[in-house]
Amino acid sequence: MIEPRLRVTIWNEFLHERTAARPRELYPAGIHAVLAAALGERLGPSAEVRTATLDEPEHGLPDAVLAATDVLAWWGHAAHDRVSDEVVERVHNRVLEGMGFVALHSSHASKIFRRLMGTSCMLRWREAAEKERIWTIDPSHPIADGLEGEFFELPHTEMYGEYFDIPRPDEIVFLSWYEGGEVFRSGCTFRRGKGKIFYFSPGHETFPIYHDPRVQRIIANGVRWAAPTGSPYFGEGRRIEPPLSPISAKHDVDESLHAGDKKKGVTR
Amino acid sequence: MIEPRLRVTIWNEFLHERTAARPRELYPAGIHAVLAAALGERLGPSAEVRTATLDEPEHGLPDAVLAATDVLAWWGHAAHDRVSDEVVERVHNRVLEGMGFVALHSSHASKIFRRLMGTSCMLRWREAAEKERIWTIDPSHPIADGLEGEFFELPHTEMYGEYFDIPRPDEIVFLSWYEGGEVFRSGCTFRRGKGKIFYFSPGHETFPIYHDPRVQRIIANGVRWAAPTGSPYFGEGRRIEPPLSPISAKHDVDESLHAGDKKKGVTR
Amino acid sequence: MIEPRLRVTIWNEFLHERTAARPRELYPAGIHAVLAAALGERLGPSAEVRTATLDEPEHGLPDAVLAATDVLAWWGHAAHDRVSDEVVERVHNRVLEGMGFVALHSSHASKIFRRLMGTSCMLRWREAAEKERIWTIDPSHPIADGLEGEFFELPHTEMYGEYFDIPRPDEIVFLSWYEGGEVFRSGCTFRRGKGKIFYFSPGHETFPIYHDPRVQRIIANGVRWAAPTGSPYFGEGRRIEPPLSPISAKHDVDESLHAGDKKKGVTR
Amino acid sequence: MIEPRLRVTIWNEFLHERTAARPRELYPAGIHAVLAAALGERLGPSAEVRTATLDEPEHGLPDAVLAATDVLAWWGHAAHDRVSDEVVERVHNRVLEGMGFVALHSSHASKIFRRLMGTSCMLRWREAAEKERIWTIDPSHPIADGLEGEFFELPHTEMYGEYFDIPRPDEIVFLSWYEGGEVFRSGCTFRRGKGKIFYFSPGHETFPIYHDPRVQRIIANGVRWAAPTGSPYFGEGRRIEPPLSPISAKHDVDESLHAGDKKKGVTR
Repeated sequence: MIEPRLRVTIWNEFLHERTAARPRELYPAGIHAVLAAALGERLGPSAEVRTATLDEPEHGLPDAVLAATDVLAWWGHAAHDRVSDEVVERVHNRVLEGMGFVALHSSHASKIFRRLMGTSCMLRWREAAEKERIWTIDPSHPIADGLEGEFFELPHTEMYGEYFDIPRPDEIVFLSWYEGGEVFRSGCTFRRGKGKIFYFSPGHETFPIYHDPRVQRIIANGVRWAAPTGSPYFGEGRRIEPPLSPISAKHDVDESLHAGDKKKGVTR
Repeated sequence: MIEPRLRVTIWNEFLHERTAARPRELYPAGIHAVLAAALGERLGPSAEVRTATLDEPEHGLPDAVLAATDVLAWWGHAAHDRVSDEVVERVHNRVLEGMGFVALHSSHASKIFRRLMGTSCMLRWREAAEKERIWTIDPSHPIADGLEGEFFELPHTEMYGEYFDIPRPDEIVFLSWYEGGEVFRSGCTFRRGKGKIFYFSPGHETFPIYHDPRVQRIIANGVRWAAPTGSPYFGEGRRIEPPLSPISAKHDVDESLHAGDKKKGVTR
Repeated sequence: MIEPRLRVTIWNEFLHERTAARPRELYPAGIHAVLAAALGERLGPSAEVRTATLDEPEHGLPDAVLAATDVLAWWGHAAHDRVSDEVVERVHNRVLEGMGFVALHSSHASKIFRRLMGTSCMLRWREAAEKERIWTIDPSHPIADGLEGEFFELPHTEMYGEYFDIPRPDEIVFLSWYEGGEVFRSGCTFRRGKGKIFYFSPGHETFPIYHDPRVQRIIANGVRWAAPTGSPYFGEGRRIEPPLSPISAKHDVDESLHAGDKKKGVTR
Repeated sequence: MIEPRLRVTIWNEFLHERTAARPRELYPAGIHAVLAAALGERLGPSAEVRTATLDEPEHGLPDAVLAATDVLAWWGHAAHDRVSDEVVERVHNRVLEGMGFVALHSSHASKIFRRLMGTSCMLRWREAAEKERIWTIDPSHPIADGLEGEFFELPHTEMYGEYFDIPRPDEIVFLSWYEGGEVFRSGCTFRRGKGKIFYFSPGHETFPIYHDPRVQRIIANGVRWAAPTGSPYFGEGRRIEPPLSPISAKHDVDESLHAGDKKKGVTR
């Protein structure tokens, strides 16, 4: 049996690393470059990792790229509004059709994540270089694979705290404790259509968090977990006639009442 | 203790009942009128029930009406696209802020329900007057209050079948069996922000389903369940300084990196 | 309409308060007495609150008491093993049949809670009088009714920390932050059979936590939420003949294969 | 990277196939033999499949076998009561520690499944050789891998119908429709401790259901899904001193109050 390749695309708005001192120092080629190297190494030869950024044509995400992407990781912060609605809709449809989506850190406020969630996705935040302690509360989850204790620590982090305005997650894998007094559902999964979604909060442009091996491991686990699996997806309205099993009633349908039903698309 | 009033608004696109023979016969004053009478009777004097329809100015849902609505019930089918985006956004924000939302039957495909869910919300359907048997699978749920057996039957129904493209519901209260061979998660709850959402599928304009006492009971239960409860809602981004507990690190913030963070609204 | 009475029984092992200095000082008549007074006041005249303790015959929980109990609150710590298996089974069956169950603090390790959960229910703990900050992460939940902010604080608490070995809760209402570095799912709900279960961790015999008005409010909310609602409960195996809808096949049953199926009880 | 072996044990009470005509005809060497062959073929050389039966010493499940089992599949029907409590406890502890558990058909009523669930696990049933249609409602789930449509059919089945008295599943993968009028949550997942549990209802001793390739595929998928993953499991009570982060209060502990806390085992 040939193991199928896992095609990963890492999207980064790639602004801070070009304009601000500390991000440039930590991520000189961009956060996406650090993540691409980490995922390439951790996912091994069966994965194919590429990157895309905001300033590329169609933000680097034309149809052909998305069609060839199994899992899309997303990092955005300052320019959520500059992502075109057309690209957002394209990504949305691909997620419903089965593409995995890994939302990183400040991507909680991205258009695409908020559209998938249906809520504001807002939260408390503070940049004070405080300690974060990340607790595993679902030790059986494959996203926790390879973690060695009940928790691990990041010495300096940006705080993201509750109330985090998301729908009830399907699974909560990690809870974070912050020195300054907050807690956070820092690793959560969701399904939308046939797509699997993993949100992971640690990771700020002014801290070397994406260089941390535990963080890299979790993101790699999340990408692997979000890879497409399962059966076909049926995201369109379907009139079913004749029935699968016999129906006793006789019934005439007033077709005018169903004029609009026959062609219902995915998010259109 | 004075029991607070429960302010309910029933929205109906109110098209079929004016233009097609069978709906007019079953619901001469509109589906909303039948539901308003049923809810008025079942919720008792502590409830105040009003209606709104598509063709009224702002679809009958100006800010003042929504601000005075605790639970909004919604029925739409043929004219989802005629509901203005502005009203959809207004309803969306009110749900996040705590207004209950009861989505009825073909409202699965409404703009507002799809926006709250983040999925296509599409399904299989067939109008063949077949039998539907509605099973209670969460007998402890208040929405099942007063039902007397494990199931009840509707002799003639429109079939709505799986795969129903919704996020995993918080709770599944009812599962439907159809004579023609399908099953359906026919009663589901969701939370979005502080708002509680109940979707209930039985109820078609060509069948007298909204005259059925069990169906009326369930919808009344759903409205009562969706009434606002709980603590304050925080749906805006909030920078927290100083911290609640002492932080040991010293850290200078590059404020330019947070320029866009300070004013993040609910769905804007 | 006459509002039905809510019949609440508070069970306490009532050992520490008779034998140890600090618990006796804080709860001279027992934790159950403080809770009974608080619930009596907060639930109002529609509730009837009684208490039961370990050293009473049948631990104060004979059939007649359980049959007349809508919600049972439970506090145990040092004597879980002294609760008889017969009483545990009796309580278990009543929960499945619809009695609400509110498990307080160290009752996480009680026989009855562990039997309802099916897991060890173990956790980290530390008695160091540290600060606990309790965050509301489900602001729409009726158990959070009346809380005024995003969180509240207890100045001195016993720490209960993750990993808390429980099944995935149906709902997580509260998350706790501890000064000493842990987090905890401190307010969780579960359903078992027709019974609703609320676990709430704050409350130790050496701290005046059950005198705190926010804590009292949450427990009263939890009791009200856990009150029986819904439709009938079917917790016994039931052979169904004839079928509800016609079956085309002819089939002879080898009755010897079903000899043991016909009488299957609840937890027996 | 060497792919680790997946060690699967299939347990069968193995009674009907030796004593009743139809089961003997369909499964002459036992249901476990058919499943072992199917899993061996479908899981490939990386899996090692063995079997165990009721009449073997310790039911074929001594400590050494369980310690060398990654996933245990279980089929029982007539002799649930003959499974010793000691073996049940042993299996329970192994599940909490991470062994996967696949409960097949009438094992819903087994001691071990009921202990893991905490409910009666009872249901409606009928043996009438009726048609069952199994719908996929979680098309992204790896347990649905390889299924080709929205549903598949079994021409003759034993009916298992709602209300099924289980805790709310973590995931519902399949819903079944029955010709005779019932519905059922026929494929459900649960976590208990670090163990993953999959319940799958199709499969009766008087029908050739375990010879069906779709059923075999689902069981193989379930076994693979239930394989141990994740981080370490902490199922024992742990006193934590000193704290991870500094605590400002001074506090003397009355050690007598914690005399029973220090050694809390998993299910003991």
